[in-house]
Amino acid sequence: MSYGRRAVGPQRYREDIGRVYEEFEVGDVYEHWPGRTITESDNTWFTLLTMNTHPLHFDKEYAAKTEFGRPLVNSALTLSMVIGMSVSDVSQKAIANLHMTDIRLLAPVFVGDTIYAESEVLSKRESKSRPNQGIVTVRTVGKKADGTVFLTLERSALLPKRGHAVGD
Amino acid sequence: MSYGRRAVGPQRYREDIGRVYEEFEVGDVYEHWPGRTITESDNTWFTLLTMNTHPLHFDKEYAAKTEFGRPLVNSALTLSMVIGMSVSDVSQKAIANLHMTDIRLLAPVFVGDTIYAESEVLSKRESKSRPNQGIVTVRTVGKKADGTVFLTLERSALLPKRGHAVGD
Repeated sequence: MSYGRRAVGPQRYREDIGRVYEEFEVGDVYEHWPGRTITESDNTWFTLLTMNTHPLHFDKEYAAKTEFGRPLVNSALTLSMVIGMSVSDVSQKAIANLHMTDIRLLAPVFVGDTIYAESEVLSKRESKSRPNQGIVTVRTVGKKADGTVFLTLERSALLPKRGHAVGD
Repeated sequence: MSYGRRAVGPQRYREDIGRVYEEFEVGDVYEHWPGRTITESDNTWFTLLTMNTHPLHFDKEYAAKTEFGRPLVNSALTLSMVIGMSVSDVSQKAIANLHMTDIRLLAPVFVGDTIYAESEVLSKRESKSRPNQGIVTVRTVGKKADGTVFLTLERSALLPKRGHAVGD
């Protein structure tokens, strides 16, 4: 997490998470923290709350008959967690998310796996229509504790310039 | 949902959800059912369970100061629900999801909105390495009850041919 602390009075500090547009440097890599161990409940609840009916995510007997032999973690869940982990570094101050693309599912994730994420800044440009904002694009990578990369994606967010974030 | 019913004995029927590879026709459109009203709890729980710290999804006072004036639904949640709704038609029998791409976030979604989804089959091809399987690509669209398209994406899944699904 990209946590800063702003002094807002004598011996008084305010948490300040995330980056404004000016703070992104193309090529910088942010190692997000903390990671997350995925539980059986995470997988079942997430799958059913999102109306996904695939038994591979919540029926162990079915999963035992598949080539994986056990439940796979729903890839929308791993994607959502990897994006979630990247927010405090990348889009905590974002006005909106604009686009996600090229989401590659490179290895299966199982219940009990612990996952981490990191992001590299690919590009940045000023908004043409919004003078106090800019667009930043990152590539985010999801890794297991053993280093296996299981997911990569690119996403873009609309970010405020310094002095123009909510709360500034 | 693509629910079938197989007779498996006298006066005995087994639910059979989803499609095998042969059943996909390029250009076919599947209207998924049912839809889903997104609640405040959905948005807060999903956001915090996926370690996303953006207050726009769970702090109404913060959200009131943004250009939307109220909490936005987390786009990973709308994405996960739209994908979830498409599973019974598209990937209920899938061995694995392979790729998602070109996810466009076209309109904001707010707590209380009711969303629906539909998918069009873009392409299909047999797997080179797995003779009993094929790859199907669809474009899925998320719509609000008033018809506003808020999200589109493409995704590909690896599907079994007839007689080769788990349970066949």
